[in-house]
Amino acid sequence: MRAIAVLAGVAALATAGGPAAAEDLAAGAAAVRDRALADGVAWSLVESLTTEIGPRPTGSPAQARARDWAVAKLTALGFQNVRAEPFEAEAWVRGVERAEVVAPFPQPLRVLGLGRSVSTPKGGITAEIALFGSLDELIALPPGALKGKIAVVSQAMTRTMDGAGYGAVNRNRTQGAAEASRRGAVAYLVRSLSTDDTRLPHAGAMRQAEDAPAIPAAALSVPDAQLLERMVARGQPVRVRLVLESRSIAKTPAWNVVGELPGRERPDEVIVVGGHLDSWDPGTGAIDDGAGLAITTAAAKLAGEGGRRRTIRVVMWGAEELDDSGEAYAAAHAAEAGKIVVVGESDTGAGPVWQARLPKGSPEHPAMKAFVAALAPLKVVVSRDPAGPGGSDIADLVKLGTPSVNLTPDTSRYFDLHHSADDTLDKIDPRALAQSVAVWASFLYTVAASDIDFRALRTP
Amino acid sequence: MRAIAVLAGVAALATAGGPAAAEDLAAGAAAVRDRALADGVAWSLVESLTTEIGPRPTGSPAQARARDWAVAKLTALGFQNVRAEPFEAEAWVRGVERAEVVAPFPQPLRVLGLGRSVSTPKGGITAEIALFGSLDELIALPPGALKGKIAVVSQAMTRTMDGAGYGAVNRNRTQGAAEASRRGAVAYLVRSLSTDDTRLPHAGAMRQAEDAPAIPAAALSVPDAQLLERMVARGQPVRVRLVLESRSIAKTPAWNVVGELPGRERPDEVIVVGGHLDSWDPGTGAIDDGAGLAITTAAAKLAGEGGRRRTIRVVMWGAEELDDSGEAYAAAHAAEAGKIVVVGESDTGAGPVWQARLPKGSPEHPAMKAFVAALAPLKVVVSRDPAGPGGSDIADLVKLGTPSVNLTPDTSRYFDLHHSADDTLDKIDPRALAQSVAVWASFLYTVAASDIDFRALRTP
Repeated sequence: MRAIAVLAGVAALATAGGPAAAEDLAAGAAAVRDRALADGVAWSLVESLTTEIGPRPTGSPAQARARDWAVAKLTALGFQNVRAEPFEAEAWVRGVERAEVVAPFPQPLRVLGLGRSVSTPKGGITAEIALFGSLDELIALPPGALKGKIAVVSQAMTRTMDGAGYGAVNRNRTQGAAEASRRGAVAYLVRSLSTDDTRLPHAGAMRQAEDAPAIPAAALSVPDAQLLERMVARGQPVRVRLVLESRSIAKTPAWNVVGELPGRERPDEVIVVGGHLDSWDPGTGAIDDGAGLAITTAAAKLAGEGGRRRTIRVVMWGAEELDDSGEAYAAAHAAEAGKIVVVGESDTGAGPVWQARLPKGSPEHPAMKAFVAALAPLKVVVSRDPAGPGGSDIADLVKLGTPSVNLTPDTSRYFDLHHSADDTLDKIDPRALAQSVAVWASFLYTVAASDIDFRALRTP
Repeated sequence: MRAIAVLAGVAALATAGGPAAAEDLAAGAAAVRDRALADGVAWSLVESLTTEIGPRPTGSPAQARARDWAVAKLTALGFQNVRAEPFEAEAWVRGVERAEVVAPFPQPLRVLGLGRSVSTPKGGITAEIALFGSLDELIALPPGALKGKIAVVSQAMTRTMDGAGYGAVNRNRTQGAAEASRRGAVAYLVRSLSTDDTRLPHAGAMRQAEDAPAIPAAALSVPDAQLLERMVARGQPVRVRLVLESRSIAKTPAWNVVGELPGRERPDEVIVVGGHLDSWDPGTGAIDDGAGLAITTAAAKLAGEGGRRRTIRVVMWGAEELDDSGEAYAAAHAAEAGKIVVVGESDTGAGPVWQARLPKGSPEHPAMKAFVAALAPLKVVVSRDPAGPGGSDIADLVKLGTPSVNLTPDTSRYFDLHHSADDTLDKIDPRALAQSVAVWASFLYTVAASDIDFRALRTP
């Protein structure tokens, strides 16, 4: 391993001044990969962020501490042009929350308010629930059918490695309250979008209706949703009391924190990768998305240290959870969008990466062949499908024509933890984290050391 | 299976009026076992208790509802002499609780106050923590060494199938605060006695020192204890703010709920089995101990229906968690203790039972051989060690000379859930529950249908 790494370093040096030849790229990518597998930077970053900062939602005092942490870490790791790019973001701040069944079987329920929920009136809301097995059952009802009720959608989520299970139920959280309000409901509860069975609800954002009253909305833990199902099955009306307090802030300061390893030959050609710095409040933002920014930062350092042909830029997006940081980043960088070679975000956990979706038309290019060769021992499948938009932090850049890459972790366990108090450091497997770093580092190396032009490869 | 059951029924009938012969006992025990494996009574009991009553700590309004539930269920199942035997118990009622690190790395902590904790002063306690890897490290300190500090013991618990892991760290929760107070600490935090990694603390009782001030005490979730370890490792003083409110009640009404299936030949010879009806407040008391009372009640019904030689009595002890119901039961029944053939409690979860510890000297008795034969397909190991006292609800009877039996479930998963919000119905595997019922039912049958005298077998 060590011998290979040394040889590869020599090969990389030998090509300074011009793009690396295919065999040099392959050796260089393999060397970067092997260094990544033994590297501790990603772990130390996510360990530091979760320990020293913890939860850091937009609008919290921790948000500014996280910004300062990010600037300090990127600087200490040798990144250049480190800066916090300001923008304005929406914030939603949780207050007191509680819920209980008041009849016929009084007992407490565990809930977490959803982002953009409104507060209940003083004293809370007490109402009969109307429980549905899916959002479609609710949508099938006519206007007024839920008048005065607390609507509950209790659909279970399927565990999948590709996130499809989340995609299938995501609208229960994001759109359920709006649909319930349109039918007269006074509040909305959704079974957490969770594949686990712990008594911890999973937070997340929702959208209020524009054509119906904004209503309070919360997620139930999975066992609490099952409890309501069993109560409802007994045939008597089930009454729930819900107290939700929160504060919405239309505009608050936020920052995308950036650092670069400038290219030596083509510094204006920029590869943009990162994760997001903000997190939901119940956990410590370990897998969402401390891991993502740690993986991409460590990978960038390994791939770009000493300078490649092109610039590698790490972005720690500052307000992903309510979808603001990607739009702000694209708006601020629209002028250079044409020079961004490729953009990618790691925002579905700590790995292992199981699939690579490459920019359209690129898998046969020698540079991508070098990358794919480096993937072989990492157990990554190269998809026949080209990369998609890849999440809210990079989708706006992709709309501007920037090519994207998707290096997607196995999410089988991600949605046990996502947006819940269980999003803590101990859930990260250091070996899986290192594998993710190796995948990203190999990719960044091959693109930064070559002249591959993904835009030119798009034509059918 | 069905044919065997019918034959065994005939065999049992044939012996009415005298103790069943060894071969009849074996056939009868096997038949009861097989009916148990297909029986739904235990599941329906624990499903009902967790859904319709939920958490039911001593001193709560749910406690009386649980008593009424128990009386109604035993009556509906055909038990006779159903009654709620009153006694007085201690209670501890949780109030507002919260904790946070205030410096150097502010973030919230998840805690649950321990039973018998006192409240913090208005505004809480803010103090530097002193963290220990074991209680012995704390005990090694001289008086005054923890003056003004919040002592923290963060010892991990080992997962074992026999409960030994719990036994090894139990005193961290029960005695830690007293030891900390003796050394000047103002509050005490213990890493939850948990084998899981969820962000849910595990409650439980503690004892205040009699020779030092009573102090506030709480359990941290496992990830929170690990978080404090990582903060302390950075070398700066870590300050924590703790708010714990609670109310202690010296004497409150409680009830042991009892039902019997009277013996036809020797009704005054009584087999006493059961579980406890009270629970901790964070969960719904599914595995602790809805499962135990469901298992023993269902087993008693299967084993005793129609009447055996001896009486089978089910006791749902009413105040186990602060150790009051066993003492009360033994005091009320001291006069008949000599006629109690054997006593057993199921109070370590929903199975499967992996080990049977029989009364001393009994394994070679024909009745116990019949029971052991019935165990064969149930994968239960018969221990070479005789039964021990078996927990606080029956230990006082055992002190009076009553023989005991231990039919012990595999606790590998029990301490993931025990005393936490995760103690919910979904954690029970119906097949394991049925296996437990089969073990208990086979035991109850062989003892109730025979004249085995465990006291007479004790002599070496």
